[in-house]
Formats: sequence, C-alpha cells, structure tokens
Amino acid sequence: MTITTGQSAPHVLSANDEPLTPLRFLQRSAEVFPRKTAISYGARTYTYAGFAAEAERLAEVFAAEIEPGDRIAYLSANTPELLIGHFAVPLAGGVLVAINSRLSRAEIEYILEHSGARILVIDAELLTSIGDIVATVPSVETLVEVPDEEFGQPGGHVEVGQISYADYLTRAGEAVSWHIEDERAPISINYTSGTTGKPKGVVYTHRGAYLNSLGEIFHQQLVPSSVYLWTLPMFHCNGWCTPWAVTAAGATHVALRAVRADPIWDLIDGLGVTHLCGAPTVCSVIAESPRAHVVERPLRITTAGAPPSPTIIETLQELGITVVHVYGLTEVYGPFTICEPQEEWEGLPAAERARLLARQGVGMVQAESARVVDADGNDVPADGITIGEIVLRGNNVMKEYFRDHRATAEAFRGGWFHTGDLGVMHTDRYIELKDRAKDIVISGGENISTVEVEQAVVSHDAVLEAAVVGRPDDKWGERPVAFVVLRAGHEVDAEELRIHTRSRLAAFKVPDRFVFLAELPHTSTGKVQKFELRSRAIDLAAA
Amino acid sequence: MTITTGQSAPHVLSANDEPLTPLRFLQRSAEVFPRKTAISYGARTYTYAGFAAEAERLAEVFAAEIEPGDRIAYLSANTPELLIGHFAVPLAGGVLVAINSRLSRAEIEYILEHSGARILVIDAELLTSIGDIVATVPSVETLVEVPDEEFGQPGGHVEVGQISYADYLTRAGEAVSWHIEDERAPISINYTSGTTGKPKGVVYTHRGAYLNSLGEIFHQQLVPSSVYLWTLPMFHCNGWCTPWAVTAAGATHVALRAVRADPIWDLIDGLGVTHLCGAPTVCSVIAESPRAHVVERPLRITTAGAPPSPTIIETLQELGITVVHVYGLTEVYGPFTICEPQEEWEGLPAAERARLLARQGVGMVQAESARVVDADGNDVPADGITIGEIVLRGNNVMKEYFRDHRATAEAFRGGWFHTGDLGVMHTDRYIELKDRAKDIVISGGENISTVEVEQAVVSHDAVLEAAVVGRPDDKWGERPVAFVVLRAGHEVDAEELRIHTRSRLAAFKVPDRFVFLAELPHTSTGKVQKFELRSRAIDLAAA
Repeated sequence: MTITTGQSAPHVLSANDEPLTPLRFLQRSAEVFPRKTAISYGARTYTYAGFAAEAERLAEVFAAEIEPGDRIAYLSANTPELLIGHFAVPLAGGVLVAINSRLSRAEIEYILEHSGARILVIDAELLTSIGDIVATVPSVETLVEVPDEEFGQPGGHVEVGQISYADYLTRAGEAVSWHIEDERAPISINYTSGTTGKPKGVVYTHRGAYLNSLGEIFHQQLVPSSVYLWTLPMFHCNGWCTPWAVTAAGATHVALRAVRADPIWDLIDGLGVTHLCGAPTVCSVIAESPRAHVVERPLRITTAGAPPSPTIIETLQELGITVVHVYGLTEVYGPFTICEPQEEWEGLPAAERARLLARQGVGMVQAESARVVDADGNDVPADGITIGEIVLRGNNVMKEYFRDHRATAEAFRGGWFHTGDLGVMHTDRYIELKDRAKDIVISGGENISTVEVEQAVVSHDAVLEAAVVGRPDDKWGERPVAFVVLRAGHEVDAEELRIHTRSRLAAFKVPDRFVFLAELPHTSTGKVQKFELRSRAIDLAAA
Repeated sequence: MTITTGQSAPHVLSANDEPLTPLRFLQRSAEVFPRKTAISYGARTYTYAGFAAEAERLAEVFAAEIEPGDRIAYLSANTPELLIGHFAVPLAGGVLVAINSRLSRAEIEYILEHSGARILVIDAELLTSIGDIVATVPSVETLVEVPDEEFGQPGGHVEVGQISYADYLTRAGEAVSWHIEDERAPISINYTSGTTGKPKGVVYTHRGAYLNSLGEIFHQQLVPSSVYLWTLPMFHCNGWCTPWAVTAAGATHVALRAVRADPIWDLIDGLGVTHLCGAPTVCSVIAESPRAHVVERPLRITTAGAPPSPTIIETLQELGITVVHVYGLTEVYGPFTICEPQEEWEGLPAAERARLLARQGVGMVQAESARVVDADGNDVPADGITIGEIVLRGNNVMKEYFRDHRATAEAFRGGWFHTGDLGVMHTDRYIELKDRAKDIVISGGENISTVEVEQAVVSHDAVLEAAVVGRPDDKWGERPVAFVVLRAGHEVDAEELRIHTRSRLAAFKVPDRFVFLAELPHTSTGKVQKFELRSRAIDLAAA
C-alpha cells in the first residue's frame, strides 16, 4: 500500500488548473513529512505516511461499496479514525456525515435517514448505547465498529451485518485517485443542532473546505511545528475545517476522547500543545483547573460562541495563553468572523480592551465582509447601537441545505446567507453579536438583547452564569426573566441582583424575576437550552 | 473617496461562491486595519485606508481610459506606487505588466510593443534615461511620470502626451468594483528574461495570484505584525505574489529603491523587519555587511536561485536570521518548491545539514508535487543520481504565454509545464536542481552538471565565485571550462584548483581550463550570463 503521488494519477488535466480539494493536503504532507507524527492518541501514534496509507486503504474499501456522492456517516468521539475519515470518505468519492454523538437517539436516527448514509462507522462506546437504533435505519447497509481498547472501549459487539474496523480494512478495493474532477462537489454534510424544528443538512464543498483550511492556517497561525489538541468536536462543522488545516500545515494532531482538565494539562505539558479550539467552556476548564500553570510553549486558543468572560481571558493571558474570539455557524464551515486585535488596543485599560476583544469582529481572510441588515436587507448604521440581522456571503458559505431547496432559498434570499443572529455594526466595522433572532425579548415594543442583560447580571461577583429569556406578559408583550447560577460559597438575593442590574441597564431591560438554579440546562453542543428555560418561565408566569 | 465595501458592490452573485481575487485582500485590510501602517518608504507612510484609497482613485482613472483586459505597464523601482499599481490595475479591469527596469532599451521597447500596453507608469529616474524610447512605442497612449523627490528623483520631465502621477490622479473616473466576474481572467503579464530568444509574456490569473498569496503566507509565516522589506524586485513574478500576500496578512510593506547593506540594516533595526526575499546576493549583502549584528526580531529570508552557500546560511543563523530556500520561475508565479526543513535534520553535522538544506525541495502547499522526468515524460528513479527535467503543474502554473500559442503548447506538453531545468529526485522526494537544460555539459556522452562542478571549485577557500560552461571539443564533444573570481587577498593557481576539484569529482568532470576574472558577467536579474562565458570559452578553444 503506497501513497499515490501526482504522477501516477490517472486523470489528465491542463497543466495550470487543479480542482481545489483538502485531499491534496494529506497527499502532500505524506510525501513531505512521511516519518513525522501526524496523530498522537494515548499510546498510539500515526506518522503522516501511516495516516495517508490508512486513509487510502479505507477509501479503497469504501469506493468498492458506494457510488460517487453517496454519504458515509461517522458517529465518534475525536479519535484518529474520525480524523482519517475526513480524508478517506472524500478520497472514496463519498460525502462525510460526522454526526454529533451527543444528540438524542431520535435525532441520530433522523440524520441517518435524511442523509441516506449507506455506511456508518461507529465508536464501540456508541454502538453499545445506540446500536439498536442505528442498526435499524434502512439506508445503512454496513455498520463498522471502531474499538478503542486503551480508552475502555474494547469493541467486539459485532452482529450480523456489522464488521469490525480492522476486518473492514482488509476488504477488497481498487486504487483511488487523490485528484477530484469538480471542486464544487460536496465533501461533507453537517447537520444543524435543530433547536427549532428538524436538523438541516449543511453541504460543504471541496473548494470551500480547501479555502477555509487556508484561512484557518493564517488566523490560527499554524506552522509545521504546531501541535493541535482536539478539544473541539470534529462533528461540529468538521472541526471548523481544522482536520484539513492542521494536516495542510504538516503539524501534529492530538486526538482526545473527552474534554477534561487533567488529560488536557497532561497533553499541554507532555506534548507541547500550541493550538486548540472550543467553546468558552473549554477556556474555563483550562483556566480554572488546579493544574493550571504558565505554559512552556505559547498556546493559542480559538474560541467561538458566547464571548469568553474578561476574567477568563485575563487568567489565560497570565498563563501565557492567547485567546482569539471567532464567530460563525454550521452554515459557514465554522468561523466566519474573527476579533482581529488592533495594535492601538494594547495601551487601553483592561476593561475597555476586554470589551473590544469580546466582539465578534470582522470577516476572516478567505471570507467576504460580514454585514448587519434591517428587515429590507439594507445595512443598519455602523453606530454600535442599531440591531439588525447578521448576513454573510462568499466561499465559506455552504453550498446548500441537503434536499431542502426551500430552506436554502429562504436562507440565501438577496444573495446573502441569513444567520438568524442579531447584532450591531460598530463604527470600526467590527460586528457584535447581540442575540439569536428568536432569543430577543420584545418588551413594550423595545428590543431587549438577552446577551446584554446576561452580561449585566454576570458582572455581579456572586454570579457564575446567567441566562435570560422572555416570559409572556399581558401588559408588555414579553418581560425578561433571569436564571442564575451562583458561584460556590457566594450568596445574593433577587433584590440585590435587581439593583445591580439596574445600575448598568435601562429600567425596562432589568428582569422582573431572578430564578436561582444549581446549573443551567445545556444542549449537547454546550449551548444553554433557552427553549427549556422559556417553558420554565411560562410556568412561572402562570404561577 | 471612500472604500467600497461588499455591501455596495453592484454585482449580485450567489451567496456561496465568490471569484478568487487578491483585490479582496486590500479591500479587507483597509476595512480591518484602516489606521495601520501599510507601506513605509523613507519619510512617507501609507495607512491601509490610504493605500486602498489611492489604489481605488487610480483605478477609477485607469478604468475611464481602457477596456477590460487592456495592459497597463509599470517601469519602476520598488516604490509605493508600484505596490499600489498591483491593486489599481486589476481593480480597473486591466492587466499589470511590471517591466524589469534593468533590461536593455530594446528589450523594454519589445515588451511594451508585445504587450500592447496603453498606459505606462514610469519612475522619473527611468523616464530621464529611457523616456526617448518608451515615448515612441505606438500602443502607449499615456505616459505617467512618478517623481520621488526624497530619493533624488524630483520629476518634472513631463512633455506633450505625458502627465505627472499627481495630476493623473485628479482625472475624472467612475466608481469601480472590488469584485470580479471571472477568477481565471488575467491579472498580470510577467516577461521572462529571454536569455534564449525574445522575452515571453507569462500570464497570471486572479485565481492563481490569490492561491499563491495564501501559499506565501503559510510558507513565509506572515502574520499581521510582520514587517516585510522589499529587497525582491516587484517586477520579478510580481514579487512572488508578495505584494498581495503581505497585504492579505495586514502586515507592513517597507518599500526600497535599491538593495544596499546600509539602508537594509537601518530598516532592519529601525522598523523591526521580520521578512524579506531575494536572490542569494541579498543574503550575502546582509551577512557580509560590517553593520551585521544579531537581530532583535526574528528575521526570515526566503531565497531562490542558486542555493545559498553553507557559510552564508551559518553566518545568518548566528545573526538570528532563518534562511528558507525555494525554487521556481516566472511561469509559476515565483516559487513552486520549498526546502521544507525536517525535525530529524536538526541533529545532523552542519555540512550534512547544509547539503540537505541546499536542495530545492518539495511543492508548496498550494502546488502539486514537482516531478523529474526523462525525455519520454516518465519519472526518473528517485535515486538522487539520475538527471531529468523538472516538470510542474497545478494552480500556480501560468495561464499561458501571451499571444504565443505555440510556445504555450510546447511548454505544456503532456499536461505538465516543462521548466527546462534539470535536476534529480532524491529518495526523500526532494528535488535538487542540477542545471538549466542548456547549461549542461555533455562530455564523451556523459552529462556533467555545471552546478556540481561550480560547487566543487567554490569549496576551495580562495574562490569567491565560479561559473562553469562547456567549450566545443573535437574529441569529447564538449569539455568544461571554469571561470573563477578569487576572494580579496587570496591567491591560487589553475593547477591547485585542478587538484582540489579532482579530489571531489570524477576526472571527466574536472575543468580543462580555469580562467581567472575580476568579476563574472551578470544579467540584469543577477544571474550569471553563461552565454557570454560560452562565447569566451569558444575563443579560448580557438586560441
């Protein structure tokens, strides 16, 4: 089994125009860095030659069993096998569907059915827990079990119609080409979390994945000596294209089954991790660990979602860790904007600097400029005050929603992808996210940004976390309710929080109720389940 | 005059597919880093807003005077105006022809005529020396003079049909779009140095320039805080796409009229230069200056052409300067391969390491793999011995030779661009350049690499520089002759050099004659004029 290099590829093209594909990145790194560690995972390591060889072997087997464009699904933690699948599936001419393993059984079943996946590669851990469901989806012809002995998943649950990963790799298959014919062909489908209605299948192309990978390389500053820790699930937007970007850089991937402080600090210290990505939760896990200490190699964390709190950013900075804030969503291959720091911010007071850094920023180098528009699609004033919808366009916008022309047309109206996120455009043309459209509270005709209210509540010393939702109100239409989690060892009552919040916000924005919880309900992707809180708020109102 | 951002562009495209163009890089940096220093040149500086504004204004004037696709030529040192022209010309829908200002008058005239340039923007210095020629080329309708008062070029030579740059910028023009319709449209034409026959016009596309810029960003490790010194002429392959790459990174360009040690060290110290590119001569100028000292900020030099000597590489390393060796040619947007250093080389003896680092290496991240082929287009064995022709393909191969279908077809035969350069493929798949096809000496049916012989001669302590060419020989067909320049204060005779060279090479490779010169003849691009030496060698043979 050898790596097919350019010369023996069967295709003949003009000398000057090669379709863009991230497959090239693995092909190149296998040729340039054959003996370098490509993947580290516990006691297992893969060289770049080994990484490419396994991807190629697996692709040969896949290719023998599918037609070009067929979907191949993965249900897996951040294992080497899922990383290899990011290359093996497109190399076989297939389309990768990496499913969020934290979804409910019904959601997983829906995604398997909707995508029509013919092959499912599944972690032994998940096969044990949901094998009964996935084994019954009619489209799935082959179920491949991936054991993970070292991390307590020995496998061996194979039944009729199922096969182990090792056995699967020995099946027959003919040589595959690392070149593709059409750079606009699908490479993967990522399903949205579907907080409103059914999950939608977001189609990525080879071209988009290639360009976004180069954008990630620039903004994350990936170089061959980088060591990337997989705290970000690969089933989220294909890990923001980082499986391809880190491979393009010829850097080292460090696979990781679960985000826990001890193994993370072990790997930072033991392998010299230089980069990782994730939700702000990941920042907290690292910053608040008793193991936290100043890092030996500079570490760069790229984080998305809610802005990381200024306290966390400061703590991490003191540890030698740089935090970069990005914003995006499944439909744009992960991040679209980045809060690009400006030289002139360096001299500012910490609070002012944190305020600027907490914004979502500007389009990445491979993206077009983000806009904030009113209901008619016109730009809102760049005043930092007027709220509008964030719309995006360019090569890092998805091809379409899979088998959903109506939703695609609706999302792409006017030639821009409509995010459903609300924000403002500042005078320096940095955008700031204010809310999901559906999360805004409209009280007496005034828009209340729940993010803004949450930030005011959280700024109280005793508060660890807060989530604000709207509660139906006969007089005002809606009124905000705050759900609050206190810091361990702290105490505060609703009245004190009301006064504190009022000192920072207009009266109409101050929540009517402060509800104290032990913890907030979170979705499988780590977002606060606002729909859950909204139903609790309705109960409150009725009480 | 404001920067047109995406929202007001007249074009309407699908939300997910934007033609690739380096114009986006300036548009983005002007929006993201409006007040940052984009260009520094003596006492002059341009912010990114100012850079984009001047490019846009100039493009408006250009656009009013040309049809889409028309050529606009520049004859200039590495001034801010030439850098701005790299954006203004394509922004106007034109095609940039940046002419090597060191060419002969006849060559410049030929290029102006062949490209059919309708506008020529010219340095006051060059207008003084060759204005009489260029003013008579029929296609050139407008001649724009760029003065440079600070550097002794006050301008004011404007005659009938000529205009000063300042006056030209005030001409009427309508808004231009930063978006393009076709990413495969030409962006520039770079003329080859034409050592054999007439110069050929190498056509670059927006797509190629965009992808190569991202490749340069990765391999040069450009980030927003980078400071790039313009020691590499922008008229060589559009400065290897670096005008676009540095702009994409939002880094600072430092323009430079001439490569001299004192101003270079002034700028390294004064502005904290982090990156520069150039021929090995530039390395020598820096390393051998009495001003040379350990640099405060890490400095990365990317160098092409002949491999830098191990001595120079070591000297620079001691100064805190990293040297990266690349290989390419005009037809591939500048560099195509890079000698990517391997971790495992770090422990090797210096001489062994230098030998590995002096090779031309592997395809860059945006390139396909380079091949070395025999006369039938089959790969030579990867044995480090068998010489073949280096052939290249992918998105960093030119679109075509302008108005020369025959030369294009000949160069692209078999779907690969034929470089005419001879090299070997090593077992680690790094290529090593051995010679230009026409520079090889064939003696008694054996190929002799003149580069190999030159390296053997130069390894003698007394030798500063050597060039080897073939001399007709009745018995052997050809025999090598070495032209040698000695180091100041050193002495050696032909017999000692013969013995020294024989100690390192097979007898048939040892030159029959060693000719001592005060200096070697160089082309305007700094290459040794081997054709000149060949005619001297013929005279020798006849003597």
